[in-house]
Amino acid sequence: MRTTTGWQSTDRSTALKQVRVERRDLRADDIAVRVDYCGVCHSDLHAIHGLMNKPTDNLVPGHEFTGTVTAVGTAVTSFTPGERVAVGTVVDSCGACPMCQAGQENFCYQGPVSTYGGIDRVDGTTTKGAYSREYVLRDKFAYRLPDGLDPAAAAPLMCAGITMWEPMQAAGIGAGSRVAVAGLGGLGHLGVKLAVALGAEVTVLSRTPEKADDARKLGAADLLLTTDETQMKQALGRFDLILDTIAAPHDLTPLLRLLTLDGTLSVLGAPVETPVRIMELTFGRKKLTSSGTGGTKHTAELLAFAAQHGIAADIELLPSARVEQALTRLEKGDVRYRFVLDLSDLD
Amino acid sequence: MRTTTGWQSTDRSTALKQVRVERRDLRADDIAVRVDYCGVCHSDLHAIHGLMNKPTDNLVPGHEFTGTVTAVGTAVTSFTPGERVAVGTVVDSCGACPMCQAGQENFCYQGPVSTYGGIDRVDGTTTKGAYSREYVLRDKFAYRLPDGLDPAAAAPLMCAGITMWEPMQAAGIGAGSRVAVAGLGGLGHLGVKLAVALGAEVTVLSRTPEKADDARKLGAADLLLTTDETQMKQALGRFDLILDTIAAPHDLTPLLRLLTLDGTLSVLGAPVETPVRIMELTFGRKKLTSSGTGGTKHTAELLAFAAQHGIAADIELLPSARVEQALTRLEKGDVRYRFVLDLSDLD
Repeated sequence: MRTTTGWQSTDRSTALKQVRVERRDLRADDIAVRVDYCGVCHSDLHAIHGLMNKPTDNLVPGHEFTGTVTAVGTAVTSFTPGERVAVGTVVDSCGACPMCQAGQENFCYQGPVSTYGGIDRVDGTTTKGAYSREYVLRDKFAYRLPDGLDPAAAAPLMCAGITMWEPMQAAGIGAGSRVAVAGLGGLGHLGVKLAVALGAEVTVLSRTPEKADDARKLGAADLLLTTDETQMKQALGRFDLILDTIAAPHDLTPLLRLLTLDGTLSVLGAPVETPVRIMELTFGRKKLTSSGTGGTKHTAELLAFAAQHGIAADIELLPSARVEQALTRLEKGDVRYRFVLDLSDLD
Repeated sequence: MRTTTGWQSTDRSTALKQVRVERRDLRADDIAVRVDYCGVCHSDLHAIHGLMNKPTDNLVPGHEFTGTVTAVGTAVTSFTPGERVAVGTVVDSCGACPMCQAGQENFCYQGPVSTYGGIDRVDGTTTKGAYSREYVLRDKFAYRLPDGLDPAAAAPLMCAGITMWEPMQAAGIGAGSRVAVAGLGGLGHLGVKLAVALGAEVTVLSRTPEKADDARKLGAADLLLTTDETQMKQALGRFDLILDTIAAPHDLTPLLRLLTLDGTLSVLGAPVETPVRIMELTFGRKKLTSSGTGGTKHTAELLAFAAQHGIAADIELLPSARVEQALTRLEKGDVRYRFVLDLSDLD
């Protein structure tokens, strides 16, 4: 057994405690990664508060990180110690089902193994996340971090970024597409950057007019005020794809009305039960969909695309000892646009 | 003003009365059609009962019919008297909006003019349907009935058929696709035939095991009993497209679970407000959609395809004087699979 240090929640509060974390001895296809940077995802908060389908006892969050390979198992040929890698929300899957075969391990029929709060397929232990200095995982679920990407700013690509990327790939977004991003937070700001780099005309949908400057700085053509009826009317039928990153439950009808023929509303921020007026889908043959993070195929493509276009998250970097501050401010929506923990303050 | 005879509902009951129906004098781009055959659609019942957004006073239903051109307006060049034509649910639209420009007049932003219960764009009168011996409409919304299609059995192609065809075209159904049809009625039986002719492997989803023989006769590979948990489990993730023609409100979750990666559930029989668990869309990036009838582009394509493959509805043909019997039996689901009225008993 290997040991490292990490930040753990035990009482559903954001006051995490520094603890000793055990990591398994390397299996033949494992690598050990020194965690350098780990993004703070909104779902970490949900998990801490017991709102995810994860155990809350001894929870070590963290599922978007970059780091450095320190050791490799006997059968590993794809990585060598010293290489920089990136890891996301999935660290194992069955490998045999149609989803895994399609490179969509995030939808594995046997259940993808989550980076934290998941059940390891070999020994049945509960996985612990990357709010810690070391992580051990199967080589297949680590990605070489391309040169030129800042390792701290790249960490959020592995959850927030891929969650934006997959629905755009599925919808065939490219030059000339009209994409709207509802909500300008950790997910949304990466959605804007990626859509712009794909050649789309991008509009931010927001209730906050003050975000217009930021939206334009990120590359958006415009900000559409969802509280302004005139603006909403003028935009009826405009978008091919709306990436809905709004975290609170909300009425989908006003968003559906902004879609063009065969347009798609992808609900990514609040995958809850919600009433849907099917008739709003009927006129224009609109599609309602959702997805969550991504599989190995799209994740590898995203990293290559991000490196090529110089895209990473806009982050606030904090020493990991200030994780409680990050979580508390995130809870209030006070971050532009993603907190990333620097784990170098841990042994 | 021209006059003809037709069947009218005045008291929201299925006891229609034979009445005199006025038709407008031909405008330059109008044609007059002697209605030979008109299908009895489930939405006719809804309209009679006041459940559609249509006036119920002096309602003459009927929006899927075939007939013979008897006169043409001065500017009409595409039809001559004596030609057989088919007409569906839309008889006019603005022609200028993006939907009309795309040949999707059924989604016209100014509202398509319904074949009955709609408001004529020129004179503001309420349209009256094809449970009558003559219909007058803009030439653009009539289609030449291809040779080889039986005019009685072809009538239901114009509503039931196109309602099945459009979502299959939008989803790119073809050889090797796996299509399920939920509900085996007027819509569903045409869905099966069309999907089979497109080269798909077709499964009927039903609560009624006795329909298995019929499903196979229509070309389906199989009938899946939705009340049988074992069968439903075995079919998880199987279908690229489910055409949901079930008329009663129902839980969408069991159907969504049958979809494969990026699969589509198209709700066509009950476009009501319904709770949707977005998480059921998340895993597998599934799409929920809907549509209704079709525009000129797809309708013309459907008629050509149907003629090429010899596809029309399985019908029960009744003299129009027996319309009440048709409506009453339809209300009980007692029809295989579509009633068609023979209007030759009217003057």
